[in-house]
Amino acid sequence: MRILVINPNTTASMTAKIGKAASLAAASGTDILAVNPQDGPPSIEGYFDEVFAVPGIITEMARNRDMDAYVIGCFDDTGLDAARCATTAPVIGIGEAAFHMASLIAGKFSVVTTLARSVPAIEHNLVKYGLASRCARVRASDVPVLDLEKPGSDARSRISDEIARAVAEDGAEAIVLGCAGMADLANQLTQAHGVPVLDGVACAVKLAESLHALGLHTSKVGSYAAPRAKRFAGFYAPLSPSVEAGEGIVAAS
Amino acid sequence: MRILVINPNTTASMTAKIGKAASLAAASGTDILAVNPQDGPPSIEGYFDEVFAVPGIITEMARNRDMDAYVIGCFDDTGLDAARCATTAPVIGIGEAAFHMASLIAGKFSVVTTLARSVPAIEHNLVKYGLASRCARVRASDVPVLDLEKPGSDARSRISDEIARAVAEDGAEAIVLGCAGMADLANQLTQAHGVPVLDGVACAVKLAESLHALGLHTSKVGSYAAPRAKRFAGFYAPLSPSVEAGEGIVAAS
Amino acid sequence: MRILVINPNTTASMTAKIGKAASLAAASGTDILAVNPQDGPPSIEGYFDEVFAVPGIITEMARNRDMDAYVIGCFDDTGLDAARCATTAPVIGIGEAAFHMASLIAGKFSVVTTLARSVPAIEHNLVKYGLASRCARVRASDVPVLDLEKPGSDARSRISDEIARAVAEDGAEAIVLGCAGMADLANQLTQAHGVPVLDGVACAVKLAESLHALGLHTSKVGSYAAPRAKRFAGFYAPLSPSVEAGEGIVAAS
Amino acid sequence: MRILVINPNTTASMTAKIGKAASLAAASGTDILAVNPQDGPPSIEGYFDEVFAVPGIITEMARNRDMDAYVIGCFDDTGLDAARCATTAPVIGIGEAAFHMASLIAGKFSVVTTLARSVPAIEHNLVKYGLASRCARVRASDVPVLDLEKPGSDARSRISDEIARAVAEDGAEAIVLGCAGMADLANQLTQAHGVPVLDGVACAVKLAESLHALGLHTSKVGSYAAPRAKRFAGFYAPLSPSVEAGEGIVAAS
Amino acid sequence: MRILVINPNTTASMTAKIGKAASLAAASGTDILAVNPQDGPPSIEGYFDEVFAVPGIITEMARNRDMDAYVIGCFDDTGLDAARCATTAPVIGIGEAAFHMASLIAGKFSVVTTLARSVPAIEHNLVKYGLASRCARVRASDVPVLDLEKPGSDARSRISDEIARAVAEDGAEAIVLGCAGMADLANQLTQAHGVPVLDGVACAVKLAESLHALGLHTSKVGSYAAPRAKRFAGFYAPLSPSVEAGEGIVAAS
Amino acid sequence: MRILVINPNTTASMTAKIGKAASLAAASGTDILAVNPQDGPPSIEGYFDEVFAVPGIITEMARNRDMDAYVIGCFDDTGLDAARCATTAPVIGIGEAAFHMASLIAGKFSVVTTLARSVPAIEHNLVKYGLASRCARVRASDVPVLDLEKPGSDARSRISDEIARAVAEDGAEAIVLGCAGMADLANQLTQAHGVPVLDGVACAVKLAESLHALGLHTSKVGSYAAPRAKRFAGFYAPLSPSVEAGEGIVAAS
Repeated sequence: MRILVINPNTTASMTAKIGKAASLAAASGTDILAVNPQDGPPSIEGYFDEVFAVPGIITEMARNRDMDAYVIGCFDDTGLDAARCATTAPVIGIGEAAFHMASLIAGKFSVVTTLARSVPAIEHNLVKYGLASRCARVRASDVPVLDLEKPGSDARSRISDEIARAVAEDGAEAIVLGCAGMADLANQLTQAHGVPVLDGVACAVKLAESLHALGLHTSKVGSYAAPRAKRFAGFYAPLSPSVEAGEGIVAAS
Repeated sequence: MRILVINPNTTASMTAKIGKAASLAAASGTDILAVNPQDGPPSIEGYFDEVFAVPGIITEMARNRDMDAYVIGCFDDTGLDAARCATTAPVIGIGEAAFHMASLIAGKFSVVTTLARSVPAIEHNLVKYGLASRCARVRASDVPVLDLEKPGSDARSRISDEIARAVAEDGAEAIVLGCAGMADLANQLTQAHGVPVLDGVACAVKLAESLHALGLHTSKVGSYAAPRAKRFAGFYAPLSPSVEAGEGIVAAS
Repeated sequence: MRILVINPNTTASMTAKIGKAASLAAASGTDILAVNPQDGPPSIEGYFDEVFAVPGIITEMARNRDMDAYVIGCFDDTGLDAARCATTAPVIGIGEAAFHMASLIAGKFSVVTTLARSVPAIEHNLVKYGLASRCARVRASDVPVLDLEKPGSDARSRISDEIARAVAEDGAEAIVLGCAGMADLANQLTQAHGVPVLDGVACAVKLAESLHALGLHTSKVGSYAAPRAKRFAGFYAPLSPSVEAGEGIVAAS
Repeated sequence: MRILVINPNTTASMTAKIGKAASLAAASGTDILAVNPQDGPPSIEGYFDEVFAVPGIITEMARNRDMDAYVIGCFDDTGLDAARCATTAPVIGIGEAAFHMASLIAGKFSVVTTLARSVPAIEHNLVKYGLASRCARVRASDVPVLDLEKPGSDARSRISDEIARAVAEDGAEAIVLGCAGMADLANQLTQAHGVPVLDGVACAVKLAESLHALGLHTSKVGSYAAPRAKRFAGFYAPLSPSVEAGEGIVAAS
Repeated sequence: MRILVINPNTTASMTAKIGKAASLAAASGTDILAVNPQDGPPSIEGYFDEVFAVPGIITEMARNRDMDAYVIGCFDDTGLDAARCATTAPVIGIGEAAFHMASLIAGKFSVVTTLARSVPAIEHNLVKYGLASRCARVRASDVPVLDLEKPGSDARSRISDEIARAVAEDGAEAIVLGCAGMADLANQLTQAHGVPVLDGVACAVKLAESLHALGLHTSKVGSYAAPRAKRFAGFYAPLSPSVEAGEGIVAAS
Repeated sequence: MRILVINPNTTASMTAKIGKAASLAAASGTDILAVNPQDGPPSIEGYFDEVFAVPGIITEMARNRDMDAYVIGCFDDTGLDAARCATTAPVIGIGEAAFHMASLIAGKFSVVTTLARSVPAIEHNLVKYGLASRCARVRASDVPVLDLEKPGSDARSRISDEIARAVAEDGAEAIVLGCAGMADLANQLTQAHGVPVLDGVACAVKLAESLHALGLHTSKVGSYAAPRAKRFAGFYAPLSPSVEAGEGIVAAS
């Protein structure tokens, strides 16, 4: 099968890192294609950045229509609902993926993310998904997203310290890493802290493979119905939903 | 004071209608400027359309920095969180405005909106705002947004029928009209049904005036902190948040 | 328009203070009349005091029937439901007013009130209104209500200290002052703490003006239906609801 | 032990009926004294009536200080919180009593009360007590309270019909009768419908006896702390809380 | 009346202690019979132990069919739902009994139990019963169950210390002791801490007596319907539900 | 990898059916071993039957220690918490598996199960897992479990009819089949109704494979900590948890 992993920000090094994490998690018959938009923010840190990433996500989906599943590689599951409207294939956000998987191996988990400004969006997602009661606390480590790419930064130790606090103070039985850029830290931190530490990229790849193997598609009744045919103005005209698009990707590139 | 009322879709006739409704509600010292984006969908009907409207909302805010308050004129409060990050002025969504006002005059209310596909986003907003327990039910009248602009349509009677069902079946004590395009129907429907029928455009204007009169600004601590300075790529480069922007509109046009 | 601001306790100096705060918030065409009951407690500190204030609130409403709106000037919104049954005019509690306004400018807020014994009633109101999820914490400053009237007290600094803790520990993005007697402190505390600090009296006046301007009335279907005609015994006989009262104030003075 | 059963309305025939129901439920060593206020409404039907009954409840408690427990005989648990502040003895509302008892013998229950206007207060109580998730639905039978006292009324059959609907439509496993005036119908309706039908008066008596036997008192820390000493004005002066009152009834008659 | 008090673990000394606590709480006409299963764990500390206690609980019920009520003497209310299916008599768990009684005398309570591993099951029960909002916190004292039986242990002081923290930090207005083995400590701890401290065994006995006196039975409609007739295999064959069992204990010993 | 699929009831034909469904879902490198207890009920229909199946589940786990994951093949996730305490390998219930997978492809889903008596346990699980807000309704088709095994029964059409009602009345966007015995119907019903229809057995196999591939284990901190070493009495002695068992299956057969 083929999975398109979309890094919603425009930083190519992070796309490469997320693609690598996805490939490591993928089964032998799964091809991973990792892309990022050409237009938008270099990192997503809060509500403002988020909204400028979504049109690019849909553009990348429209450029890659022959996929079996899509993964959105930002922990706040940027544009997830819109992306699901655009296709019958499964679309998985790495945030939701990690929340669901953590719920299968722990009574409650804590999230360790980057900056405090990213916490409210994650908390809203947890409420929306229904899993807020399973999350003990969403914690910020005060590590900016792109510091995770810098060789000499103390990002790793600050994240580890925050995990220690989550286990001691929250009663967290597992930890969810709250940023795609932390994907390579999960195994090492699991060893260090004695509780499962989950990376959403790997979780999302396995869930996408699972849904595909079971022949399950995004429901086209209700929330994720295909968009009504209409003509978008200006810059977004190429993404206008059309009746001809049928049940596959509805927006043309 | 000056309020920018932003119709997030690109249909000028609806912008005019919303602007007129806002002006009718405005106090004598309030100037209403109604605008819409140049890029984006002609109507917002579900999650897919919504995300293509938000960059244009921010663009319009950046073009109109010297405002005292902003109103987002789409009932799903499109891009509200991002818009609040972009300014210290109050930003009011017409959906939330109507929910809060209805909560002051009725024990519980029902919402009557356009299409079924718009219901989940409204339900999610109610949960996010905390007011889900005050809403008896979100109902769809199966009237497409732009039919509200067509002279000969039966839109009016279908909305009225749905209100009657809400009062009889849900125990609704007030009705919130779930689309900016219904703004001109509120008074007439209040008379017809004997319960308060609220239009979000008018409610939002009064709340914006109230916050301004009280000297209250959008909090810049936490959820709506100003975006971190960074350079957006491609089409969105002009909206890149910068340190120089200070505490006003942070994104330059 | 004319707004009756009812201080539910019998302390005239507090009535004057609340009336002044209301007048300062009022628009140019708004007349404020501030009153208090003749019978009842000199301050409301907990459930016991509260119930002895409500008959006097209704009495004051019955004495002032030709009003366009009513504001109940005690932060626990004493008797709000009963007062709404008594009139078709809008009735606003200062607690709910501040909660709704804070929800428009902050992701979450904390409340700073007087004594610990007042906390449970405020928490119950938040649950009842639906806004409990927006409130990080209700905090007591251990300042008795009438100490706010005493020149030499340290009330001001204790409230300010509690606000500092709310911002640091609760992640509060705005502060709601939890007592009508704190109305004069809001602006100064906003400056001191760098987050919006809201006073319910001013918020309630603006919401009352807004509802009046929009022609919105208290719904008479369901929760706030006019009382059934019946004859009250003894002391309360003058407030007996009668059929003749029609849709205005139903209880005669 | 001695239990004061307070009918909050002024209708003596209903006081007698409630007193009889309480006596039938009481253990051999329990003395029931049934009283009602001299001032207030002849029946409690909605929020307006309710608030005029509470001062009279406290007055009756102050007149009968040497009691081991108090039962408030109105299904909306009128004045329960204030009454608990006034004494260290247990105070039980008949609504809460029935909800708790029903939760011990059924997965979920429905309430059948009198008029639609009484429903919101009951729903609020269920949320406040925490038991809303155990209640399938609060139903109105459209029987006014005092019709329950009239020999020829069809009150009985309308209540029975509503119970039948609750079992069939709500999946109710037990029924709570939502008015003190229905106390004498419980056994007969249990037989007729094949599910437990609970009367709150009897439930409250048994819970009061139970708490007394276990030596459990109303907590004086937090919500139900004794009122602060202060002088009430006018009509309520005799009920002013005073330091001398100690831990018993704090308000003197 | 006759109450069977079932200690779900196999430790006879604890059965004796629970039986004694039950007898002390029982009214003069109530006979207490305390038993424990022959098969199962010597103490119940977490989810694993719990499931091996339940078949023995049903066995003891089947051996003692002529009872008027059953009490399950383990704080996690082991097997409560299954036991309710097995009889029309009331079945009370000591955990739920204490939660309901505490809700009648305090705004909120905290639970002090034995080991941290027992906390999640208690929290789940509180959610299931609906009373989670009444519980400030479930605390572990790190005292293993059987240490409560050892003369020289410091169990008592550790429990007392945890209660002190609950009052100071949680704002608990009452304390529920979270283990049947703590039954003899309640009175002493009430004196020491100045807030009501509740033992579930005593509470359950009084609730069982109350339901019996009121003629209330476990509903056989819905959740607790009698099991369908079928033949269990192997060890559990003697407990197979049969049609002949009628409405009494359905499983034969 | 090796997955032990445990049918908690003793009906071998259903074990074979579940094993076949699991094998069809399994990846090429996955070995499925399907077993059932020797002691216990032939089908699980409600709370009573459930508790007699759990010791047998643990026994089968103890007999098959060298597994990489365990699947509990009953829709009410019988004994899931206890089973998780018994091993470090992942343990997946088919109910939770289907709920989580449905949440990834639909805004909300309904469950169609067998008998009404099974509904409350499923509803409790949904609340416990946190996913109750994602479930529109749990519906009973009134088909007894073992009727699904009978050639001539109308089980299939009754389930299909109930699905049609769920889509029309509940707004369900996907359907979860609420019994392991329905596993073979999912694909056909998906075709018939135009919405995804999920079978929990297949979902659980994929989730078990996913967790194993990611190296994720059941957390041993908190809820699912290994049982404390102790000696069980009588029939359960062979399952006594012991220190020597280490972190694998702790209970010996």
